[in-house]
Amino acid sequence: MLQAPPAEPGMREEDVETPALLLDLDAFEHNLDTMAAILAPTATKLRAHAKTHKSPIIALQQMRRGAIGQCVQKVAEAEALAWGGVPDILVSNEVIAPRKLARLAALSSIAKVAVCADHEHGIAAIESAAEAAGLRMTVLVEIDCGAGRCGVTPGPEAVALAERIASSRHLIFGGLQSYHGNAQHRRTPEARAEAIAGAAEGTRRTVEQLRQRGLDCAIIGGAGTGTFRNEVASGIWNEIQAGSYAFMDADYGRNEDPPPFKQSLFVLAQVMSAPRPGFCVVDAGHKAVAIDSGLPLVHGFPGVSYTGASDEHGNLKAEDPAMLPRLGQTVRLVPGHCDPTVDRYDWYVGVRRGRVECLWPVAARGGMA
Amino acid sequence: MLQAPPAEPGMREEDVETPALLLDLDAFEHNLDTMAAILAPTATKLRAHAKTHKSPIIALQQMRRGAIGQCVQKVAEAEALAWGGVPDILVSNEVIAPRKLARLAALSSIAKVAVCADHEHGIAAIESAAEAAGLRMTVLVEIDCGAGRCGVTPGPEAVALAERIASSRHLIFGGLQSYHGNAQHRRTPEARAEAIAGAAEGTRRTVEQLRQRGLDCAIIGGAGTGTFRNEVASGIWNEIQAGSYAFMDADYGRNEDPPPFKQSLFVLAQVMSAPRPGFCVVDAGHKAVAIDSGLPLVHGFPGVSYTGASDEHGNLKAEDPAMLPRLGQTVRLVPGHCDPTVDRYDWYVGVRRGRVECLWPVAARGGMA
Repeated sequence: MLQAPPAEPGMREEDVETPALLLDLDAFEHNLDTMAAILAPTATKLRAHAKTHKSPIIALQQMRRGAIGQCVQKVAEAEALAWGGVPDILVSNEVIAPRKLARLAALSSIAKVAVCADHEHGIAAIESAAEAAGLRMTVLVEIDCGAGRCGVTPGPEAVALAERIASSRHLIFGGLQSYHGNAQHRRTPEARAEAIAGAAEGTRRTVEQLRQRGLDCAIIGGAGTGTFRNEVASGIWNEIQAGSYAFMDADYGRNEDPPPFKQSLFVLAQVMSAPRPGFCVVDAGHKAVAIDSGLPLVHGFPGVSYTGASDEHGNLKAEDPAMLPRLGQTVRLVPGHCDPTVDRYDWYVGVRRGRVECLWPVAARGGMA
Repeated sequence: MLQAPPAEPGMREEDVETPALLLDLDAFEHNLDTMAAILAPTATKLRAHAKTHKSPIIALQQMRRGAIGQCVQKVAEAEALAWGGVPDILVSNEVIAPRKLARLAALSSIAKVAVCADHEHGIAAIESAAEAAGLRMTVLVEIDCGAGRCGVTPGPEAVALAERIASSRHLIFGGLQSYHGNAQHRRTPEARAEAIAGAAEGTRRTVEQLRQRGLDCAIIGGAGTGTFRNEVASGIWNEIQAGSYAFMDADYGRNEDPPPFKQSLFVLAQVMSAPRPGFCVVDAGHKAVAIDSGLPLVHGFPGVSYTGASDEHGNLKAEDPAMLPRLGQTVRLVPGHCDPTVDRYDWYVGVRRGRVECLWPVAARGGMA
């Protein structure tokens, strides 16, 4: 069920067993350094989102560069991080199942953990778990700042939930979760700025109303790789939750004025059939590379397109057949969407200048519950 | 990296940690029995495709009902099956990387294995692996019988490759791989029949040309859940490679005159946010259920639709808000596509009459190389 590593340190990139999840370490470290440099002169901290990388190794590299902790979406991800030494974890999502909340409470002895709620039902469930575990759990209120998914309406509804949390002797009110997910991939900077301006208004109003009731927000969290510069500029959020910035993907590359990061994540694939001129097949289909945000790009092969994915096969076409990779050659694919691509693999293969340098487990791979 | 099981035997279905891969055992056994009953009076055998289930436990249940072996797409899948006791495995796909072929050769001591080729380059690679391992490897020639993916043209090109295999003292010619993949989901029975009639013509012609050269095809393999009745009726194929029939999915359900199997595979999800009337959010997004062939269906909730998937969230909507599941309730989702959904999970949760009966590992989960 755990797959064997597809490579060994020192191996040449073209000898890695395909498909494999390749991390270009120079580009990856550039991305971590760039984010740290952008945030250093601001009052905003990075709480990087581990839903993207699912790895305590990467989390700790982010924290060595100034990140104050990590976000996750799932309790299984929180476990993988805490077990790997990450000391401060926010579940930026609702958790209401008693078994999951008991698991989360059990992590409190090795890490600082917090979780979100958007309903009285969820708060009561967390309260029960905290009471059963004999500790106090920190709860943030999630507001729907424009994405139209989870979260209560900004303003009085959010304040009521915060007061409910603060009034419980088993809970600590931890602040606000305010993430505008679907703003991240709006194509123009103007559209992204407009979305975040709206999110900022509702967030600011809620923070003020909470303050009037004597409730301070230790965390005002949100933002992603597509918009974090807007949230930082607003001065409202004190933590940003970008994750994709470490890897990037084809879909972020399609944004106008894209974020200032390099593509560091690839799926290495091999041409395993070349049945006719201008067409060949690689061994990475949609089991190997997520296609929810579009098909992958073929890196370093101008004029070559990945035109269709089946379970285990990807079709490559070129108008000029001479441009196609040869049978047996390996190619780097740029995933359409990084997060769900990473989640399909057990191992990162870290490469630098054509050689495998390290193998890191994707520790929370498949951690859905 | 291996996730803990999301349930224990005896637990009620609604207490399983979500999202989870649920197998309705009554429906699953019905499907295995039905396929066995359809094929029993024919000369065609089932070599079920394990790319769907990735489990030697399920493979052995199919073989106890008459299947003569299993197909896989990847060497890692062949390993998981052989290690789990499956005695006869065909890699119904090209493998050309020397490291993978060495792994495949190493399985020959515990299972009968065969692999496909569609190019002289691939045959030479298999020959080298066989020679290095000191054994003879069985190779089938894949023909492109209409799908337009891998495979040589039926007729003389295929015969030339077969003769090349048969002339090697390290190889055994094993027959033809002739699978029309994209015919499986053509919506009308007429369109499927037309596609398989074309595939049958090329396959029959190639078999005859091979016979004229003294080359018999031990295996003439192909067909999937959508068309296998056509291949069986043709009298040409002697092995069919259906896999999805054990589970079914929403996309097969959209075929006119769909195959005679029940939906046995579900993703169990929980409503974890219900922020406004007529809308709620479940904890299964596209990391938990494959959307390459459309969004999942919500089983047992008429009028409720799964309208959008993000990484970890699925949106449910209903025109009549009273029809929606409640906050905290679990729902069964019917995946759009079964194979890539299974590949996201470590465990099958087998349920019967509302109770968990068994937990089976998805042994080849993530086995891409």
